[in-house]
Amino acid sequence: MEFTSSPTTGGVTAPAGFRSGAVHCGIKASPSALDLAVLAADAPASAAALFTVNLAQAAPVTVSKEHLERTRGVARAVVVNSGCANACTGAEGLAHARRMASETAAAVGCPPEEVLIASTGVIGVTLKIDKVVAGIRSATTAMARGTGSEAARAIMTTDPFPKEHAVTVQTARGSFTVGGMAKGSGMIEPHMATMLGFLTTDAQVPSALLARALKASARDTFNAITVDGECSTNDTLFALASGASGVAIDEDNYPALVNALLTVSQELAIGIVRGGEGATKLIAITVHDARTVDEARQVARTIANSPLVKTAVHGADPNWGRIVAAAGRSGVMFDVDRATVHVGGVLLFENGLPHDDAAPRAAEHLKTSTVQIEVNLGSGGGAIATIWTCDLSAEYVRINGEYRT
Amino acid sequence: MEFTSSPTTGGVTAPAGFRSGAVHCGIKASPSALDLAVLAADAPASAAALFTVNLAQAAPVTVSKEHLERTRGVARAVVVNSGCANACTGAEGLAHARRMASETAAAVGCPPEEVLIASTGVIGVTLKIDKVVAGIRSATTAMARGTGSEAARAIMTTDPFPKEHAVTVQTARGSFTVGGMAKGSGMIEPHMATMLGFLTTDAQVPSALLARALKASARDTFNAITVDGECSTNDTLFALASGASGVAIDEDNYPALVNALLTVSQELAIGIVRGGEGATKLIAITVHDARTVDEARQVARTIANSPLVKTAVHGADPNWGRIVAAAGRSGVMFDVDRATVHVGGVLLFENGLPHDDAAPRAAEHLKTSTVQIEVNLGSGGGAIATIWTCDLSAEYVRINGEYRT
Repeated sequence: MEFTSSPTTGGVTAPAGFRSGAVHCGIKASPSALDLAVLAADAPASAAALFTVNLAQAAPVTVSKEHLERTRGVARAVVVNSGCANACTGAEGLAHARRMASETAAAVGCPPEEVLIASTGVIGVTLKIDKVVAGIRSATTAMARGTGSEAARAIMTTDPFPKEHAVTVQTARGSFTVGGMAKGSGMIEPHMATMLGFLTTDAQVPSALLARALKASARDTFNAITVDGECSTNDTLFALASGASGVAIDEDNYPALVNALLTVSQELAIGIVRGGEGATKLIAITVHDARTVDEARQVARTIANSPLVKTAVHGADPNWGRIVAAAGRSGVMFDVDRATVHVGGVLLFENGLPHDDAAPRAAEHLKTSTVQIEVNLGSGGGAIATIWTCDLSAEYVRINGEYRT
Repeated sequence: MEFTSSPTTGGVTAPAGFRSGAVHCGIKASPSALDLAVLAADAPASAAALFTVNLAQAAPVTVSKEHLERTRGVARAVVVNSGCANACTGAEGLAHARRMASETAAAVGCPPEEVLIASTGVIGVTLKIDKVVAGIRSATTAMARGTGSEAARAIMTTDPFPKEHAVTVQTARGSFTVGGMAKGSGMIEPHMATMLGFLTTDAQVPSALLARALKASARDTFNAITVDGECSTNDTLFALASGASGVAIDEDNYPALVNALLTVSQELAIGIVRGGEGATKLIAITVHDARTVDEARQVARTIANSPLVKTAVHGADPNWGRIVAAAGRSGVMFDVDRATVHVGGVLLFENGLPHDDAAPRAAEHLKTSTVQIEVNLGSGGGAIATIWTCDLSAEYVRINGEYRT
């Protein structure tokens, strides 16, 4: 089935059937900083999620998993706070996460297990649950459509800007919309999900199909980014489908849904990287002609997490030797003499030899805000993968040396 | 067999039967900067080596491997230059490495294959071979004992200080000495060897036994450090045994040799970390009660390479949640609720819960120059490993953003 899609406004509340509310409840110190959001569907929605693979899982992750299992993929609302991760907080943390769900459930009128929970912020700090409860009551009294932007601000921690996106998809059966929001911006190398991501759609999607689409779209978006190689305790990506558009998704138009999820997810994931802690540049690393996609991703990820590559890009130094060295230690077998390295389309390494005359042109490219690094492994396998990351600056060090103090 | 050992001076020329010479040959810009050293044995010595496992291997690594295979573990001299890695330099680079060997061989009077070669510096730059050849001729005319310190300075790149050490071992059969030098200080997470390390002894050691002792001593020293998780193209660790002490090493007194190699190697390896690029603190991370030593090392290494842990230590922030998060993403299975975290001996996490009242005492410890982090996995296996690393500072970013320019 053919389809076309175009960007639209409204973020997570762009799809029909969703409302949101956001408040400052008092977790963050600044009284003007939003720190709690509730996203609610007008009726029970299909739901799917991806969670962190970190062994240390935060209380909201544990409780959200329980709820999705109990409902077999149905959710009515999502409650999120920023400023406190509610991770490594023991039985009290679990009780706080359950309280967030029950308070939200009471306010929107659904069973507690139809509420999903996400928290982000400092690990190992007790949630100010009284403030959170008051915030939930306040946020749910003023729920509206068109307030997705406030929700996107309420989930921020060190993020320099909010990240939201939406697209409307036209199909022969009618149109539906996919919206989303996400936050970064440190401890970012999601395994199965990102720090916090929220996707909504007004398509009618059975939850099993929604889970399949979510996993498919996350692979090359949220799971293809890294700021600092750190998989967090709270990584969560939720998808909710309200069905309010009346457009049903089946195998036939499944590609249209995956495409829209991909579009929104890629915009949000790249936003997380561009807004990475201390980042001044987005770096797209594409590995060509690997034996398999997994090997291409492994090489690209090793380059993306190389502090020497990231600092060289920060300093606009076309130091391709660091790129070759990172690829060479990635654990993937290839013949270095058949590999090539391009930076901004400029060939710097080929046949085991440098093209140092081209370095000044590559250096010019590295002064721009979007940097492209391409490595061709010459393995004959033809597999390709891209990983997005950002440069490593002194500002990253400042932010993370001072984050709690 | 019992033995005692005590520190001595002279570094790599402390053991009898070794001389060294060091000069400024013109690779480094500053005319006062030593950039070439030759270390020679008075007669053919047993030799062993460990090399980088990076697929991109520098020309001196390739040629040194060839030479050791051809001689089956005999070497007369080692020639080293700093300021240029002679890596990713193709056939010309190999010819340059061979020329370094043949010039050194002519000067000290041995076959070229009895010369080992090491280079360190920028990757992908052609060696100024004429200057190197002149430097070798000059360095070999003034070879002496007691000049190990100059050699240790000649192999430095961004190292803030030279690293050398020596110990004399007393055994019932007589005494022998082990000396060494090494350099860092970026692209440091050696696999099988460090950036550049050189060990000498005047014990009589068959080369197979020397290789075994070298591997045994490197595991918990040069292979247990990381500055930035980057395995280089030039990592090399050489060991040469002159036999000039008359003390023969066999299975009986093998422990005395390994112990001395361990002592010297640990001193050098920790020196590399303390002198890591931009480092202000040494961090020793010990993981207790893992199921196996390999798992203990994997967890310790993941924590050691965590930029969030390294920046928190830099900022003296007892942010133990980042330590738990890094352990949790290491790939090693353990029960987070049975794990504990100590920083400077202060318990910060136990039974899944924080001890935040203790944080100020841990913060005081983090202001010192040697930081101790201990994680107990509570797995019942009892395995222990330590990895040494350094903090991550804005200076690391400055050094590596500007290294070539």
